[in-house]
Amino acid sequence: MLKFDEELFLNLVEKEGLAFRGQIEEIVDGITKRGYSNIFLIGAGGTIAMMYPYEYILKSNSTIDVHAEIAAEFMVMNHKHFSKDSVCIFTSVSGTTQETVAAAEYCKEKGATTIALVAEPNTPLTQIADYCITTGSETHSFDTFFMLLYMVVFRFMHNNNEFPQYEQFTNEVSLLPRAILDAVKSFDKKAEEFAITHKDTDYHMMVGSGNLWGNTYSYAMCILEEMQWIQAKSIHAAEFFHGTLELVVEDTSVILIKGEDETRPLMDRVERFVEKISKNITVIDTKSFEMEGISEEFRKHFSVSINWSVLSRISVYLERERNHPLTLRRYYRQMEY
Amino acid sequence: MLKFDEELFLNLVEKEGLAFRGQIEEIVDGITKRGYSNIFLIGAGGTIAMMYPYEYILKSNSTIDVHAEIAAEFMVMNHKHFSKDSVCIFTSVSGTTQETVAAAEYCKEKGATTIALVAEPNTPLTQIADYCITTGSETHSFDTFFMLLYMVVFRFMHNNNEFPQYEQFTNEVSLLPRAILDAVKSFDKKAEEFAITHKDTDYHMMVGSGNLWGNTYSYAMCILEEMQWIQAKSIHAAEFFHGTLELVVEDTSVILIKGEDETRPLMDRVERFVEKISKNITVIDTKSFEMEGISEEFRKHFSVSINWSVLSRISVYLERERNHPLTLRRYYRQMEY
Repeated sequence: MLKFDEELFLNLVEKEGLAFRGQIEEIVDGITKRGYSNIFLIGAGGTIAMMYPYEYILKSNSTIDVHAEIAAEFMVMNHKHFSKDSVCIFTSVSGTTQETVAAAEYCKEKGATTIALVAEPNTPLTQIADYCITTGSETHSFDTFFMLLYMVVFRFMHNNNEFPQYEQFTNEVSLLPRAILDAVKSFDKKAEEFAITHKDTDYHMMVGSGNLWGNTYSYAMCILEEMQWIQAKSIHAAEFFHGTLELVVEDTSVILIKGEDETRPLMDRVERFVEKISKNITVIDTKSFEMEGISEEFRKHFSVSINWSVLSRISVYLERERNHPLTLRRYYRQMEY
Repeated sequence: MLKFDEELFLNLVEKEGLAFRGQIEEIVDGITKRGYSNIFLIGAGGTIAMMYPYEYILKSNSTIDVHAEIAAEFMVMNHKHFSKDSVCIFTSVSGTTQETVAAAEYCKEKGATTIALVAEPNTPLTQIADYCITTGSETHSFDTFFMLLYMVVFRFMHNNNEFPQYEQFTNEVSLLPRAILDAVKSFDKKAEEFAITHKDTDYHMMVGSGNLWGNTYSYAMCILEEMQWIQAKSIHAAEFFHGTLELVVEDTSVILIKGEDETRPLMDRVERFVEKISKNITVIDTKSFEMEGISEEFRKHFSVSINWSVLSRISVYLERERNHPLTLRRYYRQMEY
């Protein structure tokens, strides 16, 4: 596959990634033992979007009080649920994302407990966090982060006596890297076709829901807009019929991000509607992937990770077809503002 | 002013709207006395967007547990913080919005307390809610709803011993209709100019933050997209630098929705950036309105209401300049889906 080294992937995500399980359990168990009032998931752009699935999963499965907050807003809003008893979780590939680093410093100063997942070692965020998992490589860092966040979040739920299936779940986490690899391979041709078909498309609607809303929001903003300079509107499936639907015409590109959680019927409804109007629909559905060894019960959770990995295949082909490097920026980190 | 009857406005919002104060206090005091675990603000499209300011205000000013949830998603997600002890608040102009009515029924069946603000009397939502304020007129209903929501939310905070300034605040609420009218009058010319300048603009970015994020999201989706069929991307100011900024070029229309809460510096930062790139910026800033009699301390809260009322002036001129009625729909309530 283009720009995908299978051996490197398995080495980074499966071998090295899974090895953090013991460390994560130790961190979460220690925090649970000392007690905490709530969990704050904090990030900016791709890293707050990465937290939305876990906020959704916690709200749908746990009584733990959880808040996903955008870093820069969190720091000024005087959030009344935040205190020294909060647990604040951050991720950053570079370890230098300005707002995330500032928010972690802020949380630490206020006496809260901070946990960070960082790819690059010896960076500001690794220094600040009380607990830091440093994965060591920017390559496939989102795949690893998603996997580690499953471990963190479900361990908190387990310790809160809300997830007796923890052992089984964690065993299935260990199957996730292979499931991702299979999904990526089976989707790769479709990703390439999408990029060829859409190399000149200048506007996409992306619709998602539930635990895939974060990926939908993120792919539109951080990949299509930021990395390809293509207009993209992300719309929640439950909101689609309250405005954006009116823009759909025969040639509108609509990308449906379908997963397997409780909100799937909302996506089905959008799909039924757009099928009547547009001839330009792309359905990316985790149901089409085998996820070998993953139980029916947990497929919905792992869909987050699977979905992000297959979306990423579209990116590499868009880059090639559009001759537009994913790293090219007009402004971000190119100028002061 | 075009399509604005001042006398009717004052009659509906000031005279009739303010008269609900006693009824609202009675409802909220009764609920407080019986006890409740948390507040759910539930809606779809414009009515969930209308709740976001109050979610923000509660998070920033109160320890009351609050959740703003999209109606259709809320009904399927199995929200673990929702219970018979929850207070669920809804608004609907027509009283018939499909998802809102269904969600209110769901909440009532589960034994939760339901409060609804509805414009049209004798409609499904007025029948379902335990407590219903029926305002009686669709005209200016959003202005009235915003005002009543201030009363509801700040009364809950007051009863929770978190808002000793309640009397002063409520006295200022009674000045709000006149402040809105003054703002609308002073903005009207600018609204008309915007519509003339932008009658052929086919894409706008709208940036907002804090308690004005809801208006930003709503104006893009429910007015520009739904009622004018113009592409519009709403971006939170704290997220703007993580993607969408890369699309800004010299002629990009960027609409900045500025208020007066703690997040204003985030908007200032976006403004400094876009000023360097685009020659096509519209700043809509509540600071430019007098709000006579409103104290410095509370201006930030009333900005929500003021901002929505002036944005609505743009709508009537867009309708005229573009010869596109605000009521025209391709699909919504025109077909089954």
